[in-house]
Amino acid sequence: MSDQAQNLEALKKEAALKAVALVQSGQRVGLGTGSTAKYAIEELGRKLRDGELSGIVGVATSNASADLAREVGIPVEDLDPRPLDIAIDGADEIAPNLDLIKGLGGALLREKLTEVQARRLIIIADHTKIVSRLGEKAPLPIEIAQFGFLSTVERLREFLPGGRLRMTGASNYVTDNGNFIYDAQLPADFAPAELERRIKGTLGVVDTGLFLCMAERAFVAAPDGVQELVR
Amino acid sequence: MSDQAQNLEALKKEAALKAVALVQSGQRVGLGTGSTAKYAIEELGRKLRDGELSGIVGVATSNASADLAREVGIPVEDLDPRPLDIAIDGADEIAPNLDLIKGLGGALLREKLTEVQARRLIIIADHTKIVSRLGEKAPLPIEIAQFGFLSTVERLREFLPGGRLRMTGASNYVTDNGNFIYDAQLPADFAPAELERRIKGTLGVVDTGLFLCMAERAFVAAPDGVQELVR
Repeated sequence: MSDQAQNLEALKKEAALKAVALVQSGQRVGLGTGSTAKYAIEELGRKLRDGELSGIVGVATSNASADLAREVGIPVEDLDPRPLDIAIDGADEIAPNLDLIKGLGGALLREKLTEVQARRLIIIADHTKIVSRLGEKAPLPIEIAQFGFLSTVERLREFLPGGRLRMTGASNYVTDNGNFIYDAQLPADFAPAELERRIKGTLGVVDTGLFLCMAERAFVAAPDGVQELVR
Repeated sequence: MSDQAQNLEALKKEAALKAVALVQSGQRVGLGTGSTAKYAIEELGRKLRDGELSGIVGVATSNASADLAREVGIPVEDLDPRPLDIAIDGADEIAPNLDLIKGLGGALLREKLTEVQARRLIIIADHTKIVSRLGEKAPLPIEIAQFGFLSTVERLREFLPGGRLRMTGASNYVTDNGNFIYDAQLPADFAPAELERRIKGTLGVVDTGLFLCMAERAFVAAPDGVQELVR
């Protein structure tokens, strides 16, 4: 790893620490998925072990995060209709208003289902995820049913022509929910809420990686330190 | 079986025969699921065997229908983006304008994904399925993701309070796509397209059993014969 990359990892960890500092004893905490969320789960475990926090329950957005949480000593429960006090997760793109693209890791549906129940959604990321508009760098992951997926992709291509089905080697990538993912290129100019409605309303679509009006704040690791963004 | 029930079965079969009479040689045919669609698949097989039709390809809406089709000699292909010339299926409720509720058999998503591609959707049913408004007798099946399903049900209950998760014995019923089904009671008065958009737009929902503006005609078996309804 280069010095710069090492430094960025250290800053991502620092961002995670700042997010976990918001967690209070007795809270139900949504646990994100991915390389930055990992730091938050580890820190939460450390605080529990060191007695800095107690009575925490974790609700994980992926099997991988549930496993890691148990490993570091966080009691894990399944999602139920009770609200979560706080959720901490990474993002693939962060717009100035904290609208997000998530799902490059493939956990978008579980992340959205979990984090919509959080009173506070705190995003942690490195500065390369900051964009001036969503879709600037990343594709938008769209989770679609396996059955008839080629037709669903055609329906999506009518208004999102640039994009492709996500593959793992020669096979279609399959989500935790048994669905496929179409990674769509977003147009240069679009109304996020309207696009979200249109995609979600498309026959065969299960959900999209657009997380609109959900994040409360973001801790962003940049070369010159960790920046805090508030919606 | 009572005389009346036997007679109804004979009339359902007659309705199926009338639907299959619309199929022409060389066509790609969507094959429905359920007790009435079964008669259509059997009749299509008979016509192929007897040389009354040739060059038919069936596209099935369930594994059960695919198996039956192969058994009676219909070549079966997976759904791809090409249009189907015609599809024949049953329905759980038929409104006067031929809007439908489907999915009591659990195949709603595959049926909708298949039948939306059919140039002609022909419905076959017995007269007990005719209603003056959708939801009069049947619940509306809504397919939802397993993960976080209790929260999704709560979101649905905010505007569809009467309803329950479908069970098979003591377990949740699981669709061919690995999802659960919430059977919602519809209000006495609603705008179908608006309700469809609202349900489909709900986080965690995969699809609904509302089939709006899809059916071209219906052959309905009644005690006094088979009635033909056209949209």
